[in-house]
Amino acid sequence: MEVTASAPAKVILFGEHFVVYGEPAIVLAIDKRAYVSADIRKDKQIHINSVNLGISGVFKGESFYEEFGGQKARRTLEPLKIAIQKVLERSKKNVGVSVEIRSTIPVAAGLGSSAAVAAAVATAVGRLLDLELPPEEIFHISYEAERFVHGTPSGIDPTVSTYGGVLLYRKDKGFTQMKVKGEIPLVIGDTRVKRSTGDLVATVHKRSNQYPSIIKPLLKIGGKIALKAVEVLETGDLYALGQLMNINHGLLCAVGVSDASLERLVHAARRADALGAKLTGAGGGGCMIALTKPNKLVHVVDAIERAGGKAFEARMTDEGVRIED
Amino acid sequence: MEVTASAPAKVILFGEHFVVYGEPAIVLAIDKRAYVSADIRKDKQIHINSVNLGISGVFKGESFYEEFGGQKARRTLEPLKIAIQKVLERSKKNVGVSVEIRSTIPVAAGLGSSAAVAAAVATAVGRLLDLELPPEEIFHISYEAERFVHGTPSGIDPTVSTYGGVLLYRKDKGFTQMKVKGEIPLVIGDTRVKRSTGDLVATVHKRSNQYPSIIKPLLKIGGKIALKAVEVLETGDLYALGQLMNINHGLLCAVGVSDASLERLVHAARRADALGAKLTGAGGGGCMIALTKPNKLVHVVDAIERAGGKAFEARMTDEGVRIED
Repeated sequence: MEVTASAPAKVILFGEHFVVYGEPAIVLAIDKRAYVSADIRKDKQIHINSVNLGISGVFKGESFYEEFGGQKARRTLEPLKIAIQKVLERSKKNVGVSVEIRSTIPVAAGLGSSAAVAAAVATAVGRLLDLELPPEEIFHISYEAERFVHGTPSGIDPTVSTYGGVLLYRKDKGFTQMKVKGEIPLVIGDTRVKRSTGDLVATVHKRSNQYPSIIKPLLKIGGKIALKAVEVLETGDLYALGQLMNINHGLLCAVGVSDASLERLVHAARRADALGAKLTGAGGGGCMIALTKPNKLVHVVDAIERAGGKAFEARMTDEGVRIED
Repeated sequence: MEVTASAPAKVILFGEHFVVYGEPAIVLAIDKRAYVSADIRKDKQIHINSVNLGISGVFKGESFYEEFGGQKARRTLEPLKIAIQKVLERSKKNVGVSVEIRSTIPVAAGLGSSAAVAAAVATAVGRLLDLELPPEEIFHISYEAERFVHGTPSGIDPTVSTYGGVLLYRKDKGFTQMKVKGEIPLVIGDTRVKRSTGDLVATVHKRSNQYPSIIKPLLKIGGKIALKAVEVLETGDLYALGQLMNINHGLLCAVGVSDASLERLVHAARRADALGAKLTGAGGGGCMIALTKPNKLVHVVDAIERAGGKAFEARMTDEGVRIED
């Protein structure tokens, strides 16, 4: 009998890039989710259909048969096959699986779409095969899927997709769930400009190497902003949170990862009375986030759209990966 | 016999705003000048005609008679009358003076137009009255004129207009002339957005008071950038200078003084292969500067103009206030 699971997208609220240099980061799960339905196949094949991407195909042993999506079909679906195989191995059942993915998460926008899909796949297939996979196991499987794509991922994306909520990441202490007072009303603006995360990480690295006496203390300030934000989130002071986002964005500009498309959306949001706005993720295009008063969400969405972005409301969610009824 | 003098505009290369908190700044004189012609009047009146502003009028003792410019005429011309009176007092001559101002410096754009005009007025009138006013005296008179307009000016503008060149300002050591290797090819982009310097200084002050543990070290980094730029200017490494400008601009964003109009021009310049670009002066509109290779000046001017700014080339000049032949 078909089982459906879902997992949330993430946004980085503070600390992207600086986290690479050991500074803390704050990430949160948002109410955009990837939905995955799984069902048993008697033919032992693994069939994966990503409805949003228009990509589908079948894995039979080591072979892949593309149905839709052309050349990139296998590369896109392979990490999910890996996740499904891991769950199949644990179940020791000699069956095949069909999964269908429907996601409300923009792809390749730094919102952790692939990790959310992987976590939902592992959870749906696990339940389908009568396994009670604990969250650590779901995290582990989706981390492995991410590793196939990204090499050495930070683990932020699969953690947020698995556990939900707002997480503080520190290099020495790992992830801790944070206490947050009230809502965090966000608008996400997608510049639609594609970028390479690797290139942007390299940009910061180069600048840091060339001007260490300037950039190293700047990265430390980034860490201070994140820790100040921890206090601010506990008191629910959205005004202060917005200010900290603005300061953080300036530092990201200073290390060279903002661009014209991001600035257009960031300033459009601020002019529309957003409490704060910053790029989120790698920068150089991709997405920005704006913090707003709850009654200003629509207003800020409009402003970002008028500035040429694709915008949508996003709310923090405590719900990590879950089975849908 | 009519005497003409001229004085240069300035741009702040590094350190605006941070200088208020004791950090160093680098300013340079550029080849946009205010020209002032002065002649004797037998009627003891002071007649001032600003051709560019379309403002003119006559001071007779304590009274003012407006010719052109309406309500703002007196307020605009009064500081120049003060400068002229100081020179007249020193000369002990019982005459009147006519001055005519023609300037190539954009007004109210943070380029030190008023100080350049005051320095040129003092110099032209001084020579007209056979005084050999030393530079310190010219500085002093134009500083007094500035004080009438701005309350407590930093002294940067009249210093640059008087002495020319590239100056390092440090709170404890005052101004020192810097050694610079080669050219500093700049494009100045005017956003045409008017702003209040006082409001922007207050914005930084407020942010610094609210988040001292974040903003105070950030201001210190601003100082480090300026001191690093001193080294870089001595070696003539334009590439490094541009990078430092970009980093400085990010810090100015972090303290809250950039805006959409500035970002548009800054990123247009960077996309057009400028070596670096930053706001200059108070921010919140006003002007930005882009550093370019000498053969890219026109290209960057075009890019800024296409992005909606008013742009012009500017070169460093060693020539402070001078008598024109």
